[in-house]
Amino acid sequence: MNIYSIEEPSFLKNLNDKELEELASDIREFLIESCAKTGGHIGANLGVVELTIALHKYFDSPKDKIIFDVGHQAYIHKILTGRIAQFDTLRQYKGLCGFPKMRESEHDVFEAGHSSTSLSAAMGFAKARDIKGEDNHVIPIIGDGALTGGMALEALNHIGSDKTDMTIILNDNEMSIAPNVGALHNMLGRMRTNTQYNKIKHGAEEFIEKLPQVGTTLRDLADRVKDSTKYMFVDGVFFEELGIKYIGPVDGHSFEDLAAAIKTSKEYKGPVIIHVITKKGKGYHPAEHDKTGVWHGLGPYKTETGEVLGQKSTESWSGFMSNTVLEHAHKDQSIVALTPAMPVGSKLTKFQNELPERFFDVGIAEQHAVTMSAGLAAAGMKPYLAIYSTFLQRGYDQLLHDVDRQNLNVLVGIDRSGLVGADGETHQGVFDISFISPLPNMTLMMPRDEKEAAMMIDFSFKTEGPMAIRYPRGNVLGVDMNEDRDSLKHGTWEVLKEGSDIVLISYGPTLQTVLEAAHGLEEKGVSAKVINARFIKPMDYKMLDEIGNSKLPVFTVEEAMLIGGLGSMVSTYLNDKQYSNLVQRLGIDNEYIEHGNVDRLLGDIGLTSSNIIDKSIQLLEVKNEKSTY
Amino acid sequence: MNIYSIEEPSFLKNLNDKELEELASDIREFLIESCAKTGGHIGANLGVVELTIALHKYFDSPKDKIIFDVGHQAYIHKILTGRIAQFDTLRQYKGLCGFPKMRESEHDVFEAGHSSTSLSAAMGFAKARDIKGEDNHVIPIIGDGALTGGMALEALNHIGSDKTDMTIILNDNEMSIAPNVGALHNMLGRMRTNTQYNKIKHGAEEFIEKLPQVGTTLRDLADRVKDSTKYMFVDGVFFEELGIKYIGPVDGHSFEDLAAAIKTSKEYKGPVIIHVITKKGKGYHPAEHDKTGVWHGLGPYKTETGEVLGQKSTESWSGFMSNTVLEHAHKDQSIVALTPAMPVGSKLTKFQNELPERFFDVGIAEQHAVTMSAGLAAAGMKPYLAIYSTFLQRGYDQLLHDVDRQNLNVLVGIDRSGLVGADGETHQGVFDISFISPLPNMTLMMPRDEKEAAMMIDFSFKTEGPMAIRYPRGNVLGVDMNEDRDSLKHGTWEVLKEGSDIVLISYGPTLQTVLEAAHGLEEKGVSAKVINARFIKPMDYKMLDEIGNSKLPVFTVEEAMLIGGLGSMVSTYLNDKQYSNLVQRLGIDNEYIEHGNVDRLLGDIGLTSSNIIDKSIQLLEVKNEKSTY
Repeated sequence: MNIYSIEEPSFLKNLNDKELEELASDIREFLIESCAKTGGHIGANLGVVELTIALHKYFDSPKDKIIFDVGHQAYIHKILTGRIAQFDTLRQYKGLCGFPKMRESEHDVFEAGHSSTSLSAAMGFAKARDIKGEDNHVIPIIGDGALTGGMALEALNHIGSDKTDMTIILNDNEMSIAPNVGALHNMLGRMRTNTQYNKIKHGAEEFIEKLPQVGTTLRDLADRVKDSTKYMFVDGVFFEELGIKYIGPVDGHSFEDLAAAIKTSKEYKGPVIIHVITKKGKGYHPAEHDKTGVWHGLGPYKTETGEVLGQKSTESWSGFMSNTVLEHAHKDQSIVALTPAMPVGSKLTKFQNELPERFFDVGIAEQHAVTMSAGLAAAGMKPYLAIYSTFLQRGYDQLLHDVDRQNLNVLVGIDRSGLVGADGETHQGVFDISFISPLPNMTLMMPRDEKEAAMMIDFSFKTEGPMAIRYPRGNVLGVDMNEDRDSLKHGTWEVLKEGSDIVLISYGPTLQTVLEAAHGLEEKGVSAKVINARFIKPMDYKMLDEIGNSKLPVFTVEEAMLIGGLGSMVSTYLNDKQYSNLVQRLGIDNEYIEHGNVDRLLGDIGLTSSNIIDKSIQLLEVKNEKSTY
Repeated sequence: MNIYSIEEPSFLKNLNDKELEELASDIREFLIESCAKTGGHIGANLGVVELTIALHKYFDSPKDKIIFDVGHQAYIHKILTGRIAQFDTLRQYKGLCGFPKMRESEHDVFEAGHSSTSLSAAMGFAKARDIKGEDNHVIPIIGDGALTGGMALEALNHIGSDKTDMTIILNDNEMSIAPNVGALHNMLGRMRTNTQYNKIKHGAEEFIEKLPQVGTTLRDLADRVKDSTKYMFVDGVFFEELGIKYIGPVDGHSFEDLAAAIKTSKEYKGPVIIHVITKKGKGYHPAEHDKTGVWHGLGPYKTETGEVLGQKSTESWSGFMSNTVLEHAHKDQSIVALTPAMPVGSKLTKFQNELPERFFDVGIAEQHAVTMSAGLAAAGMKPYLAIYSTFLQRGYDQLLHDVDRQNLNVLVGIDRSGLVGADGETHQGVFDISFISPLPNMTLMMPRDEKEAAMMIDFSFKTEGPMAIRYPRGNVLGVDMNEDRDSLKHGTWEVLKEGSDIVLISYGPTLQTVLEAAHGLEEKGVSAKVINARFIKPMDYKMLDEIGNSKLPVFTVEEAMLIGGLGSMVSTYLNDKQYSNLVQRLGIDNEYIEHGNVDRLLGDIGLTSSNIIDKSIQLLEVKNEKSTY
C-alpha cells in the first residue's frame, strides 16, 4: 500500500488486520517526518492512527458522518481522504488547514477548533437524518478533556433522553492539553482499570439477552437482574444513568478490539458510547513520553531526537504575565489564579508550584472558570483568570452577568489576543474588544510592551472593578524593566511621539509598526503624532477632545475587528462631540482570517508600516482637497 | 409570630416544628396576597417556603453563604432577612428586585437572573473560605432544570474531584419553567420513586459505618461492600460517581426531614448534595395545578380564583414569530424549530403539537441549542432557533464558531430584544447588536411591525447564510396583514417619511416613537426624514451615501447599548466615507438598566418622542452655528 496514492477511504474495506497495521505504521512514520518540518498537533494524531483507520474501515464516510471534536486530531482522516500531498503546507498560509475544513473535502462534514462541540453537532446531523428518513451513521469523536466542557454535557443529557441513534467515540488518552482534572476524569480512570469487571458484566448481559422472550414477567425479571449487574459493576454507570449504552474500555491500538466494539455498537439502536483508550504520541518516543505538554501542538522538530527547533529563549507574553501576577500574589494573600485547562499554554505552572492552594485549573470549563472567579471576588479575593481571547467567547454571558454586572474585582488576562497564526480562524483573538467594550463596568487594556504590562497588572490589583488586559501570542519585546515605572491613571493614553499633521492611534505591540510608519512619514515630510491608547475602555476623553480641537486627521490602527473595535469608538466619539476631524480606520474588515504566518496575514490586512504610510498620505490628501474645496 | 416584624433570620433558632409550620403558612398567605397585586414568580416561591425557612434555621446567614440559582425563588429569603415591607414595590421601578441583590441586603451574597451559575459561584466562595482559613458553610440552591445547564455540570465536575466542602441543595420541583427534558431529568424521576431502596441503602451504610476500625483489611472489605450497596441501589449513583455525597430524596415540605438531611450533611466533610423534592405552587391551588407554565412568572391576578388580570387578547411577538415560522414549516419540510427550555415563553407549543418530530426543546442548554442548530443546518435543514436575547449570550461562542464561521443557514429568533421591564438588568436584551454585528457572515434584522416580521422570516428562509431577527417582549402592533407584502432586498432600508432638515434613523417598534417625534417636529416647522434601518447588518450603504451627500444632520435612536449599536455603525460609516454630517446617537449609555415599567425606563434613557424632538432641535442649532461660524 503506497500511502501517497490514497484518494479516498474505501480501499480499507479490503485490508486485513495485518495490512491495517502496516498502513498504520506507514502513516505514523509519515506524520512524524512531515510534522517535523511543518509543526502541528503531532501527539494527538499519533494517538488516533488505528482509531481513525478503523472508523473509516467500518463506517462509510461521507455518507456516515464522522465529526471531530476540537479537530486538531484529523490528520489521519485527511490522509485517508486524499490529502496527503498537501501536508507540506500544513497550517501554513493558503495551505492545508490544521482542523477539518468543509471546503477541503466532502468528508469534513463539520468544522471545529474549539472543544466540546461534536456531540451537539452530531445531534443535529442525527435528527436531520431521522427527519429525512435516511439511515446513515453519525459518529462524533470526543476526547476525555473535551467531555468536561459544559456544552458536551448538555448534549449528552439531550442525546441520552432522546435515544437518538449515534455512536460516540470517547477518545480517552488520559491527557489532553494538560493533565485532565475533574471528577469525570477520575471516573474514567476507574473505568480504565476495570476491564475485569467489564468482561463479567458483558458476559452477564449476553446471557440475559439470550433468554427467550417467554412473557413479560420473566423478561422483566431478567431486565431487573441486568440492571443490578449494571450497577454492581461500576463501568459506564455514569453514561448508562444518562441513557447511553456504554461499551468499553477498548484498546484503541488494537484493530481487533476496535472492530469488535464498532460491530457491537452497530447492533444497538440508540446512543452508544465506545470508550477507547489511546496513547497520545503513540509510536514516537519524545511525544509518547511527553510530561510537559509541549508535544500537544508545536513547531518543527528534529525527527531523531525530538529536539524542538527555533525555540526562542526570550520570555513569552504568557510567561511574563503569569510570573508578574505571581510576584504580586506572594505579597498579596488575596490574589488567586485560574485557568481553564491551559496551565502550560498560559504559563501558570510556576504559580501552581509555588502557591498550589491559590491556583485552580478547572479543566475545559470556561463558563465555570469565569463565574468561579466572580464567586471568589464576591468573597473578597482578587482572582486572575488567564484565558485565551478566543475561548473567552465561551464565558461571555458569565463575564457580563456575573463579573461585570456585579462590578466585581476580577482581572482577566486575555491571552493570544490578535492574530495567532497557524491555528487559524477558529483561534484568532480578534473579537474580544467588540464583545467586551459594551459591558458597562469593564476596564479593557492592552500593553505596548512588558513594562507597560507590569504597570497594568499593578494598576488592576490596586483598582476596584472588573479589569481585562489583552496580550498577544509570542514573545515580549525585551525592553529594559529597570527603568522607573509610572503608575497608570485610569482611562489615560500616552503620547509616544508628537506631530502636527496627522494623529495615529493604536495600542499594544502594533504600536511598533505604527511608530515605524510615523518615522517613515517623517522622512516624507509628514509630521505624525502617535498615541498609545493603552486603555481601550474607558478611552482618554480629555486627549480625544484635544485631538478634536486640533482638527487633525485621525488614523486608527488595530489587529482586531473593525466593527466594535477601538477605531469605531474613537470615530463615534469624535462625531458625538461634533468634531470635524477626518477619521480613517485600519483593522480586520468583516472577514475571518485563516491560518498562516502572522506577518503574511498582517500584510493581507494591510497592517504594515508601508500601508500605514500610504493610507496616512491619502488621508492628508483628502483633507487638503476638502480645505481647498 | 408577626411576619411583618421580621428583621433578620436568627429568630428561627428558637422555633419548634409547629411554630415553623405556622410561619410557613403565614408567609405563604402573604406571598399569595402580595403577588396578586404586583405579579412575580409566585409558583417557584410557594414551592420553597419550608426549604428556605429550614436553611435559615439550620445555617447562619450571612456568615454561611446561601447562593440562589436563577434567583427568582428568593422571595422567602427576602422576607426572612427583613424586606417584607418592600414587597408592594416588587419588580417595580426603583422597587424591590425580583432577584437577589447585594445592595439590598448583606444576606444576598451573589446575584443571579440567569440559570446554572450557583455552583460555580459557590466554588468561588468555598475556596475563598478555605484559603482564608474560615469555617462557614456554603449552600448553593439549584433547581433540577438549571442543573442541565452546561456550566452547572462543569462546576459539579470540579467540585466532585476537588472534594470542596459545601452543601448543594437540589431543589427538584419536577417542573421548572417548562416540563424538564433530558436524561438527568429522567434520572431524577427514577430517584424520586426510589425512597424504599434509599432507606435500605442508608441502613446498610450506617451498619458499615459502625464497624470497628480493626485494621485496613476489614475496613477495605467494608468499603467494598458499601460500594456495592451503593451501586446496587440506584439512588444518587450519578452524583456519587462524580464524587459528591448524595442525600435524598427528602420531602421539601417536611421540616423534620429537612432538618435531618441538613444535620447529616453537616457531619460530612466534602461536597454533599441534598435532593429536595418540592411542589411548585404548593398551597395555592391555581399555581399548584398549573399545567401551562403560566404561573411560573406572571402579572397581577385575582387571589380567590387565580384569574390572571390585564391579559391582552392581542397576539404576542413570540406567538406571531413562532406561528409564522410554523406556516413556513408546513410548506417546507426542511424547517425545524428549537428552544432551550422556553416552549411556552417562545410560544412554540403550537409548532410542537403540529410538527413534533421537527421540534426540539433541549432544556436549559443554550450552547447545545446553538451548535445543534449548526449541525442541523450542515445536514441540510433550516433550523429556527427561538432564544431570548439575554440567553443568547450563553451561546455566543457557538454562534460565532459554529454558525457564523461556517456560514450556515440558521435563523435565530432573538426574543425579548430591548428592555424587558420587571425582570430587570439580568434580562434586558440590549447587548445582542453589539456582540452579533462583528460576526462576518451574520445578517441581523429587526421588524417595525408584524407585517415586516413576516417579510423577514420569508426573506430568511429564502436566503443563504446565518440570519437573526430580533423582536421585543410584548404584543404585536395589530397592523393589517392583508396588504401586499414586498419581498425584502438584502441590506436595504426603508424611508418611512421624507424630510429635508434632519434624518432620523431607527429600527423595530421604536420607530413608532420616532415617527411620533417626526410629526411633532413637523408642527415646529422642522422637516424630518425617518428611516427604517430594518437591516442592522448589513446596513444600506447606498442610502447612507445619499444621506452623506445630503449633508443633513443624522439622529439615530435605539433601545440598545450605544457602544456597538446601530448608531455607532452609522456614525462610523459616515466618518469612514468622509461625509461631514453631524451625527447624534440616542440609546443606552454604558449602564445596566434595572427593573421597572418599560415606559418609565424609556423615559430615564430619553427614548421618548419629546426628548427626540428636543435633541433634534438642539442638533439643528449646532448645525446652524457651525455653518454661520
